Order: sequence, then C-alpha cells, then structure tokens
Amino acid sequence: MSAAASAQAGAQFGVAGLGVMGAALALNISDHGFKVVGWDRDAKHVDEMNRKHGRPELQALASLESFVASLERPRRILLMVTAGAAVDQMLERLFPLLSPGDVVMDAGNSWFQDTRRREELCKSKGFRFLGVGVSGGEEGARHGPSIMPGGPTEAYALVRPVLEAIAARTDEGLCVTHVGPDGAGHFVKMVHNGIEYADMQLLAETYDVLRRGLGLSADALADLFSKWNEGIAESFLLETTIKVLRKKDAQTGKPLVDLVLDKAGQKGTGKWTVQVALDLGVPVPSIAASLDARVLSSMKDERVAASRKLQGPSETLSAEEKAQLAQWAHDALYAARVVTYAQGMRLIQAASQEYKWNISLAEMARIWRGGCIIRAKLLTPLREAFTQQPDLPNLLVSDAFAPVLEKMAPAWRKLVGTATKVGIPVPVFSASLAYLDSYRSAELPQNLTQAQRDAFGAHTYQRRDKPEAGFVHTDWNS
Amino acid sequence: MSAAASAQAGAQFGVAGLGVMGAALALNISDHGFKVVGWDRDAKHVDEMNRKHGRPELQALASLESFVASLERPRRILLMVTAGAAVDQMLERLFPLLSPGDVVMDAGNSWFQDTRRREELCKSKGFRFLGVGVSGGEEGARHGPSIMPGGPTEAYALVRPVLEAIAARTDEGLCVTHVGPDGAGHFVKMVHNGIEYADMQLLAETYDVLRRGLGLSADALADLFSKWNEGIAESFLLETTIKVLRKKDAQTGKPLVDLVLDKAGQKGTGKWTVQVALDLGVPVPSIAASLDARVLSSMKDERVAASRKLQGPSETLSAEEKAQLAQWAHDALYAARVVTYAQGMRLIQAASQEYKWNISLAEMARIWRGGCIIRAKLLTPLREAFTQQPDLPNLLVSDAFAPVLEKMAPAWRKLVGTATKVGIPVPVFSASLAYLDSYRSAELPQNLTQAQRDAFGAHTYQRRDKPEAGFVHTDWNS
Repeated sequence: MSAAASAQAGAQFGVAGLGVMGAALALNISDHGFKVVGWDRDAKHVDEMNRKHGRPELQALASLESFVASLERPRRILLMVTAGAAVDQMLERLFPLLSPGDVVMDAGNSWFQDTRRREELCKSKGFRFLGVGVSGGEEGARHGPSIMPGGPTEAYALVRPVLEAIAARTDEGLCVTHVGPDGAGHFVKMVHNGIEYADMQLLAETYDVLRRGLGLSADALADLFSKWNEGIAESFLLETTIKVLRKKDAQTGKPLVDLVLDKAGQKGTGKWTVQVALDLGVPVPSIAASLDARVLSSMKDERVAASRKLQGPSETLSAEEKAQLAQWAHDALYAARVVTYAQGMRLIQAASQEYKWNISLAEMARIWRGGCIIRAKLLTPLREAFTQQPDLPNLLVSDAFAPVLEKMAPAWRKLVGTATKVGIPVPVFSASLAYLDSYRSAELPQNLTQAQRDAFGAHTYQRRDKPEAGFVHTDWNS
Repeated sequence: MSAAASAQAGAQFGVAGLGVMGAALALNISDHGFKVVGWDRDAKHVDEMNRKHGRPELQALASLESFVASLERPRRILLMVTAGAAVDQMLERLFPLLSPGDVVMDAGNSWFQDTRRREELCKSKGFRFLGVGVSGGEEGARHGPSIMPGGPTEAYALVRPVLEAIAARTDEGLCVTHVGPDGAGHFVKMVHNGIEYADMQLLAETYDVLRRGLGLSADALADLFSKWNEGIAESFLLETTIKVLRKKDAQTGKPLVDLVLDKAGQKGTGKWTVQVALDLGVPVPSIAASLDARVLSSMKDERVAASRKLQGPSETLSAEEKAQLAQWAHDALYAARVVTYAQGMRLIQAASQEYKWNISLAEMARIWRGGCIIRAKLLTPLREAFTQQPDLPNLLVSDAFAPVLEKMAPAWRKLVGTATKVGIPVPVFSASLAYLDSYRSAELPQNLTQAQRDAFGAHTYQRRDKPEAGFVHTDWNS
C-alpha cells in the first residue's frame, strides 16, 4: 500500500471522477464529517484537488488501486464520469479490486436501461450498484443537491447517511429518498431534465412574447418577473431568469442576455425522455416541443435566410392586448407549467408500472422541492395531490389543480391567440394547451382516423354502439 | 424435387409470406406476365392461394426447399413477413438454400438499421439484399403500389423489371426508383408513414373544428371536402375522408363514421420517425404531435372522466368566424400539410447525408405521386422545387411554396386562434404553425435559454457580438 493510501486508510467514501461535479460532491461530503478519498484518471484533477482542498479528511489519489484499498468495507464508491462507455470501463477496472458487498454508485446522467443492465451485472458479481440522479448543477452538488438514488434497498441503506447529510433540505424534508429498484433513480432524473427543458422553453416563450409584443427591456422584464416570483409562479428557473436579465455586460453596460447568441443545444436526457415516452405510449408533447424549439434555434443561419423569404403577419397587438398581455403571460406560464409537470409525472407513473418500481410520485415532488433545477412552489400542492391520491391518473384532474387550470386557461388562450396572430412562435404554450384540451375532450376526432385506416388498410375499428362486437372491418367503397 | 416444384421449375419470382399484402403482390406480379411461386409457413395460406388463384404461372408451395429450388437463378425472393425477428428467422432458413448472387427483398416495414445490418450480413454470405418500402395498402399492392427499394445497385437492376411492371404509374412516371444503398428504402418508407400520421391528424382536426365549430353533418362535410378535392388540396387521404364520411351504417342508416369509436393506435414506423429525428437533430414537431394525438385519443375512459372535471371555455364562435371558418380551414389544411411534408423531406435529407445514401428528394416526391397513401397534388410542385434546387434546405423557403404559405398563413392563424378560443384541440395545426414561425424568425429567445444554462450549469454560451471568442462562461451572480 502506498504512503498516500495508508495515510487515507479507513476512508468512508470514495469519489471517482473529480471534474466539476465530482469535486463539488467530494467537498460537500467532506464538509459533513465523512472521511473522503478521491480519484481521477487525469493526474491534473488529482493534483488540483489536493492543492486546493487537501486535508486529512479529503485526499485525492492518482492510483485506482490505492483509492479502492483505502476505503472501509463495505466500500462506498461514487462514480462521476461521463455517461456511456466510460461507466462500463470504470466498472471493469473496479471489479478486480472490489470485495463482496461493496457499493458502487453511478451519479452521472446514465440511460436507465444501462443502469438496469449494470445493476444486474454487479449483482451477479456479488457487488451492489446504485444509479443515482443528482440535480442542482455545481452549486447544488457543492451545497445541497436533490438526489434520486435507485437500486437495491440494502445498498441504499449503506449510503443513506452520506446522501442524507449532503442533500438539500426544505420545510418538507431532505431532498433524497430511495426512488426504487435498478434504473428507477436515473429514470426519474431523466424525466426531471425533460421537465426542465419544457419549463425553460416556457420561460423563453414568455420572454419572447413580452419582449417582442410589448417591447420590454431586460430590466423591465426582470422587474415584472420579480413580482411574479413572489407569488405562486415562484421557481428556481424564474429566479435564474431574473438574475440573467439583470446582468450587464462589463464592457458595453448593455444587458448581457441581449448579447448572447440564440442557439441552444439539446442532448441526452431530454431526447431520451421523449424517445422512451413514445415507447411507453405516454404523450409528453410539451417536452417534445421544447426539444424541437432548441434544435430550431440552433439553425440560426437558415432562420436568418428564411426571415427574408417569409415575412409573416403584419398584424400588431391591439391596445387591449397590450394592456393585458403581461397578466395573460403570468397565468399561461403557471398553467402550462402545471401541464408539463403533469406529463412528466405521468411518464414516471407509466415506467414505474412497466418496470415494477413502485415509485411514490409524492416523494418525487418532495425531493424536487429543493436543490434541483425544477424546484418550484407548485411542487408543494403537487405533492399534496399525489399524497391524497397516489394513483391519480393525471395531475390535471386533481382537486388542487383542476380549478386553477379552469381559472387560468382563458388568459392562456388569449396569450396563444395573440402570439399566433402576430407570428411569435409559442410551441410549448400551444402544445401544452392542446394537451389540456385533448385530455378534457370526451370526444375526439379519431373516429375519422380509425375509419380512414380501415378504409385504406383494413386495420379494423371498434363501434361505440357495439363495444361487444370488438374490432370489425367494413368495405367503405360500397 | 417434388411434383409441385418441378411443375413450377423456372419460376421468375418468389413471394414468401402469403398474407393479405404478400398475396396481393404475388397476384400483381403474375398479372404482369412473370411466372411466380409463393410460399407460406402456414399451410392454410398456401392452400387458399392455390384454390383461389392457382394456375401454371402462379403456384403456392408448402415446402420452403421446393419454393427456393423452383426459382431461376439468380433467384428473386420477396419476403412479406412481420417486421422484426421474423425477417431474421426467414433469412436464417433461406441461407442454406440460396446460391451466390441470389436477391432477397424484405418488403415489410422494417427498422432501417435492421435493414442495414441484414444487407451487410447477406453481402458477407455472397447474397444480395434489398430493403423495399411498399405503400398503398392491399389495393395498392394488388393494382399498383409505390415502391421504395434500397440496397446494392446491381441487386436493384435484377429486380427492376418486376418492380417497374407492378408499380403505380402517373403522368410523372413509374412510382418506383432505386432510393439508395442499404437502409435507404426502408428509411424513406418510414418517413412516408410519419407524414401520413401528420396528414391524417390534420384531416381529423379539420373535421373536428368544422363539426364542433359549425355543427356540420358528415354529409355536409363530405360535400365541402369534395369541392376542396377538386383544387390544390386534392389528395388520396382527402378522397378517403370523403368516402368515409359518405358511408352509411347498414342497420341504422346513420353516417357510419359517427358510430366509430374515437380511439386510434400508433405503432412502428410513426414512432420510429420521431425517435430517429431526435437522434438526427431534425425537428419534426408535426409528426410528433400527430402521434401524441393518437395516444391521447386511446385514453378514452380518462378523457370522459376529465371532461366532467375540466369544463373548458364557454366562448363560442362569432358570426364572422362561423362565416369564414370553412375557408380558413381549407387554407390551413393546405399550408400545414406543406409544413409536414417539409419536415419529412428534411429528415430524409439529413439521413441521406448521415448514411451517404445520396437520395434524390425530387425522385421521392415523384414516386409518391401515385400508389401510396400520401399521394397528393402538392407533390408535383414539391418535386419541381427539389428538381430546381436539389440541396434546398427547406421546402418552406422554395419559390414554389413560400408565396403560398405567406398567402395562406393568415387564414391558418385565424383557424388556430378560433379553435384555441373555444377549446377545440388542434395540436398539429398549431405545432406546424409554430414550426413555420420559428423557422422564419431571425431572432429566437434561446439567448435566454443559453444564459440560464450557463448561469446554473456553467454550460457556456456564444456571444453574438464576438463570434470569434467561441464559447465563454460568465459568473451571472456578481
């Protein structure tokens, strides 16, 4: 055993991967009185950690063997490496070094099916594996993230004291709980990110409508949003929006947001949310539309060219529309946000049934109340709705939200109608409203769709007046 | 060799899988003077084919060995079996029976990556493989489908006379062409189906708005659509809609469409289109929204329950809206359809670049002009647009369509605005309009999104005033 390892012998927790997030988590854990050892394949990260933060209770090692050897058994090792092949490679390197019963946590944004596979693999080798969703960015990781661990119950019991020590805290408790078996934690984190995409896009659309519609400056918008953030619309992302709108460019003194290029990327979790929702047959149109909005934004050169070819409407806002637009936007933002959370919760519910995870939606709302990116005031009534009725089919019909949606929908309709008239795209506002209107429609026009499919493809259909007849076919030509 | 096989010795074409589509294709090929042999693993299908259609030029065999032995070399065998594992099983059964240079065609709705894998596998064994998209339902297969074959050029040359003989014909030529290598044909067929989903949903939304908004009966709608079908909106699906609306229930005399249950399913190709579009970074929001609309329709019991809890707006149509709604719907239907085709073509273009398929979009428009489900008058100007400019970035900015969209968009905005006001969901009309408005917006609000991402996750951003600086990070707190 090397000197460094022996110095660190009896470490209680290991963090492999000392990038921004890994280093922040290691510091957070160390701050809470656990003896932590770190490792990174890049010696620079190891040296930087020791130089900046080295102390007897927190030391980084360059040798993976020493890192593993220095940990108390059963070992608790958290991986914070890039999702994908790097996780599998880390596991392969760790397997020969581990002892039966050791716990390995993958805290990256891994695809939940990979997590299911890895959990199975580790179990077959006598080790324990947890897929751990962590939200909150660097700030959250350093001072209190929301943590979504999935895997075997007894593995969670072994790491629980550490995760509970570092998690964010709210009036509603600690922002960590055992989500469920195998891939449950990473699935929930993925959906969290999907909701985050939609919520951010709703804020972007709100900003755009008020900027283009009313000509409001960044400061004026920050003032308006600050008022909103004192009420039911309060959320971390709204707060972040205000902060962003207030920031001035050092050189020009202009609002910095006005100088940021309007090209956004999308990756991993957001995309997966939409893809797996299609596989599970759960509509998440608000999340899907938010991804498409980012992709369209990234096509900047094409958009600039197209703007010369397609002028759009010459209509402008009426005096009444101008006077009311801000209030409409407030209600629309809140109501549409409820719809995006409803879609996300429904997706978790469907996956929980499919994979027998037995996830408590109320608990998810509770652990999202602090630390994470989508923390928001509305999560409190949302939690209460799922506490009262754990099998609630959809948040939209809950006693807590149905009346609010009824009250706010008229303003939402006005906002979408006005934006549509003047040509400001509001893809997530309109997709969310279409979801609400579809879900509350006892009759939809897919009778025509089914008749068409039977007419050209003999796909058969059901009769509403003869359900007992099952699927029937008609010759629609005669 | 069995008696049956020797009777059939020298057959020019084999069809394996004699279900509805396979039998129709076998008959179509036989009608065009080719000696055809059929096979099915289900003896009932074999017997039925011989009983109904048996003749020296068209015979079905129960033995796969005899079926293969009876074919001229290089053999031409078309598989029409369920997409998925059944195709792989058929190939495994065929391999020991085939000779070098034989051609196997998979005419099902296979996932294009499976087709790429199978093409590679067949090549490694000295055989030739084509993934062949076939559209047109039973009627098309029997009397002239649109055919989208992908695979090696020399394999296509061997089957071309047969495919050209049976394909649909229009003023613009035969509805078959060599799409490109390996999975190109199945990819194009998949996107065809994705467009089909969106186009059908646009018709459903049109029907719903006019039915609920104006109270029009099925017959009145059929009359209106018949007028539309004489103009630029002419399409097979509109024609099918008219036919469906006219059909009366034999017992009650009521329009049969009114008795069809409003629950539609979605499967395979539509879902794949959206999933692969996400992977390729191509927005197809109209297709995505059409899938979600079907899934929402299938949640009938929930919708009925929700309709009691969420009343929706009490607003009604004004006299002006009632007077103009039908004309608005016509223009909206045409313009939104252009947008859905634009998204599909863009997706094919992206895949063609990714997989080096060199697909001609003009040719795709040409072979879709007849035989297939999405055949429509607008495919003629669409083909011309891509003929004039093969690398057209998006149909929306073509000289053929940009002026039409500008002209029709105001009515489209009115339609979406009116439906939004009264609570009739128009997810694909609004998603398509948001796509148009996003694509023609030189400025979008994703500068806010990028600033937010940098503020909470240090994701970095680009400055519009300093592109040379690349990706930068700011501390948005200070």
